[in-house]
Amino acid sequence: MTTTGYTCKNPTNVTADDFVFTTLVRGGNTTNINKAVAVPGFVQQFPGLNGLGLAVARADIEPGGAIPLHTHPAASEMIYVAEGSVTAGFISGAPSNVVYVKKLNKGEVMVFPRGLFHFQANTGEEHATVIASFSNSDPGVQVVSSALFGNDFSSFLVEKTTNIDEAEVKKLKALLGGSG
Amino acid sequence: MTTTGYTCKNPTNVTADDFVFTTLVRGGNTTNINKAVAVPGFVQQFPGLNGLGLAVARADIEPGGAIPLHTHPAASEMIYVAEGSVTAGFISGAPSNVVYVKKLNKGEVMVFPRGLFHFQANTGEEHATVIASFSNSDPGVQVVSSALFGNDFSSFLVEKTTNIDEAEVKKLKALLGGSG
Amino acid sequence: MTTTGYTCKNPTNVTADDFVFTTLVRGGNTTNINKAVAVPGFVQQFPGLNGLGLAVARADIEPGGAIPLHTHPAASEMIYVAEGSVTAGFISGAPSNVVYVKKLNKGEVMVFPRGLFHFQANTGEEHATVIASFSNSDPGVQVVSSALFGNDFSSFLVEKTTNIDEAEVKKLKALLGGSG
Amino acid sequence: MTTTGYTCKNPTNVTADDFVFTTLVRGGNTTNINKAVAVPGFVQQFPGLNGLGLAVARADIEPGGAIPLHTHPAASEMIYVAEGSVTAGFISGAPSNVVYVKKLNKGEVMVFPRGLFHFQANTGEEHATVIASFSNSDPGVQVVSSALFGNDFSSFLVEKTTNIDEAEVKKLKALLGGSG
Amino acid sequence: MTTTGYTCKNPTNVTADDFVFTTLVRGGNTTNINKAVAVPGFVQQFPGLNGLGLAVARADIEPGGAIPLHTHPAASEMIYVAEGSVTAGFISGAPSNVVYVKKLNKGEVMVFPRGLFHFQANTGEEHATVIASFSNSDPGVQVVSSALFGNDFSSFLVEKTTNIDEAEVKKLKALLGGSG
Amino acid sequence: MTTTGYTCKNPTNVTADDFVFTTLVRGGNTTNINKAVAVPGFVQQFPGLNGLGLAVARADIEPGGAIPLHTHPAASEMIYVAEGSVTAGFISGAPSNVVYVKKLNKGEVMVFPRGLFHFQANTGEEHATVIASFSNSDPGVQVVSSALFGNDFSSFLVEKTTNIDEAEVKKLKALLGGSG
Repeated sequence: MTTTGYTCKNPTNVTADDFVFTTLVRGGNTTNINKAVAVPGFVQQFPGLNGLGLAVARADIEPGGAIPLHTHPAASEMIYVAEGSVTAGFISGAPSNVVYVKKLNKGEVMVFPRGLFHFQANTGEEHATVIASFSNSDPGVQVVSSALFGNDFSSFLVEKTTNIDEAEVKKLKALLGGSG
Repeated sequence: MTTTGYTCKNPTNVTADDFVFTTLVRGGNTTNINKAVAVPGFVQQFPGLNGLGLAVARADIEPGGAIPLHTHPAASEMIYVAEGSVTAGFISGAPSNVVYVKKLNKGEVMVFPRGLFHFQANTGEEHATVIASFSNSDPGVQVVSSALFGNDFSSFLVEKTTNIDEAEVKKLKALLGGSG
Repeated sequence: MTTTGYTCKNPTNVTADDFVFTTLVRGGNTTNINKAVAVPGFVQQFPGLNGLGLAVARADIEPGGAIPLHTHPAASEMIYVAEGSVTAGFISGAPSNVVYVKKLNKGEVMVFPRGLFHFQANTGEEHATVIASFSNSDPGVQVVSSALFGNDFSSFLVEKTTNIDEAEVKKLKALLGGSG
Repeated sequence: MTTTGYTCKNPTNVTADDFVFTTLVRGGNTTNINKAVAVPGFVQQFPGLNGLGLAVARADIEPGGAIPLHTHPAASEMIYVAEGSVTAGFISGAPSNVVYVKKLNKGEVMVFPRGLFHFQANTGEEHATVIASFSNSDPGVQVVSSALFGNDFSSFLVEKTTNIDEAEVKKLKALLGGSG
Repeated sequence: MTTTGYTCKNPTNVTADDFVFTTLVRGGNTTNINKAVAVPGFVQQFPGLNGLGLAVARADIEPGGAIPLHTHPAASEMIYVAEGSVTAGFISGAPSNVVYVKKLNKGEVMVFPRGLFHFQANTGEEHATVIASFSNSDPGVQVVSSALFGNDFSSFLVEKTTNIDEAEVKKLKALLGGSG
Repeated sequence: MTTTGYTCKNPTNVTADDFVFTTLVRGGNTTNINKAVAVPGFVQQFPGLNGLGLAVARADIEPGGAIPLHTHPAASEMIYVAEGSVTAGFISGAPSNVVYVKKLNKGEVMVFPRGLFHFQANTGEEHATVIASFSNSDPGVQVVSSALFGNDFSSFLVEKTTNIDEAEVKKLKALLGGSG
């Protein structure tokens, strides 16, 4: 154990490379329904984060695409626009349900408080790249569409608990790989 | 300030009543679209919770009703079925999106980890009452349907970030008081 | 490990039952010196609480009985009267040593700040059932009478550190299973 | 606000003296029922501790005296014997109620986990001085004898919740300034 | 107060702009002894960070320049190379004092554990820009050269506590604006 | 596991000795370049501290000696002068870099906020002994002179990141066992 107490590797085997993450040099594949992709550098991918209270991710979004509405149950998020521009936003808690939306240009920063729904959309003309950091080495993620339509959550209960019409639910389950 | 440091009132004015909450003796009005109602005893309603790391709520659900799908950004939740029975569940984070659902009878307890979507539905024949406790005096709440359809979140962006058809979005906005 | 990071079981083996606790459907045996019994649902009994910052317990108290004066070193407590009524209270820290006592009826809630002495007595005519929740999955418990008289704590030191007469100490040790 | 964020004074008025506490150079008056006295250096007495997660106290104990059994609801404690020797101990939680007692000589250190009953007695022939540090700037303190017998906690409820005979309770209330 | 409890502004006056920070679109002035400059986006500059457990900064470093050796007493740091390349490193605690150094190219990420000395130098041929995020909204900063030579810390004590020759100390104090 | 949850030993094997640390009865050897020595009682040396949020150390300083300038990345520190007197101080964060220095006599207490540079020098005529306590069971330590001159940190980078002349750096590396 090192002074800071967090390294699990035998400290004599630790090198500078354990504290470096090179995966985000390139973005992921945006050929998908959202025309967007996020690549995480959470503690599962980047073990050197263990105990440091931080994680990272890179999102690439094509024009017309969007990182879908989601939450991180265990972290606040801060984004930095590295390339292009994005329309980003989050929604405050009930009962006010205020939507805070802003178009961000290259070099601008926005924060999303822990556990609240947020998204980034590319409403511009060029590819956008966003670097996100998180206040926890394991932020977790819950995507609204996947949680509702990408699993075996019964269509009856989805309608009952969200008011979305069961026919629409079944249509989206077909689209997003869900059943039930 | 008392020994535990949390009371904001002048301690000479503090009485036992400051640590007691009587609002939950009766449930709220279930005559609404969900046939269900939740009454919170969070720090805003029950100031004596300040600093204690706990909050409480009571939910009443008529047969066929449901407390809609929601999250608490700042707390885990534990429910105790005080009357009747409920079908309760939560959804784990992406990418697995597992739905954990269970029918609970009177006296049974279930927990929902912090920040994850969960719900309670009354699939039985009689009125159900649930007492919930939370791991934070200010749990917050974000309701999926209200966050998507109960505010001015643009229908265009709702579809873009959830894949729900814009026509369905507009229909639900009309139903739930939203616009845009 | 799930999104929230707390489950120790292999996640593919986790089911909804891991998040449900059915032991509290019935109370424990109140045939004892206190005419009262508490049944815990702490992380030792309910492993699904791991990492959630919550625990639960059920207390049953016959008329004239009491849950003895005790503290939870690691948690605040909140009680909900599920049946009957109880006279509950806690004592603030030195030097004020204020006693906050209140008779609670069915449906009423009271909180006891972390680490402070508290109790529940049944001063009514009917059986009382209390559901307690805690701000920690492992609250711990230290009972005043057991700590003083239910072990081998030397009677000489008990008198020296509490001013209780050594003869009374020895009498209570005999009653509560202590020695020394 | 300074870099560490904890100082409430205008930083231009802060001097080294704000981080120094000189009260413990001398002990308090041990002419009392316990032949012992503790002088706290908690955040109330030593404001420079604010936010630092530490507090201090000095205990002086004459031969035959003792710091009475007590808990700190908000801190673990570590003692250093600066002069003389003490017999110190703490009691673990229920149900085991183990008493850990040790005679400590000058220069020895012992720890008492947060929230558990502990004491220091002088079973030697000379004056003892103990320096205690705490894991919180506001540890709080609850003294068993004062909480039971030094206030208006009803003798009926004291007996009911501790099994101590009501006559003994009344005798101790007279001795320690309580009523009821 | 919003659901997450952190906003100090009246919530009705809060807008999306409160969660956006535009200062880092451009870097600061690198015409100085270090040929480098860091611009912070800590809670003092970006109040919307309050309670979110994150902060941000931008560093610009000319070829041959360096952000001097420093620590953040209250935060771990994660850097993302937005432009050019940097040689970055940190030093582990005593007694091992291991130096972890790595040349990072555009898009690479490195972490520095809380409270440890670290630096970034531009050993390349082109301007470098680094975006740093922190695990605390108020990380604080302590720069080795400024703490030793940029104030009135007595040269006698600097030598006594660092072994740096007093003549060298006085030379550096003259260079860096210190006295004594 | 005991009530407080921190003991790793089988609880049936735990004795009072596990909570006692006797190493600090005597100080270490001060025959070294600093005429001073610190002996830690951190969780590595004193396993009973695990989870208690406290650690201890003893420093002995001969006249003219000093505990070198250092930080604890993970803890605030509080010192108690047990014997003799010391001149102690710490430096606040940038940009103010204020030096708070005070001569402390026997029985006086001073605190150093987490992560900031601090030192103790013996500017008196007699041996000094200091007992330090920490707000973490594993405070860590980073010594300025060792981190700069006691390892293989390249002299070129030391000069580049601290402004200390490379010749002085090489001289100190020779003195303190460093290379490069």
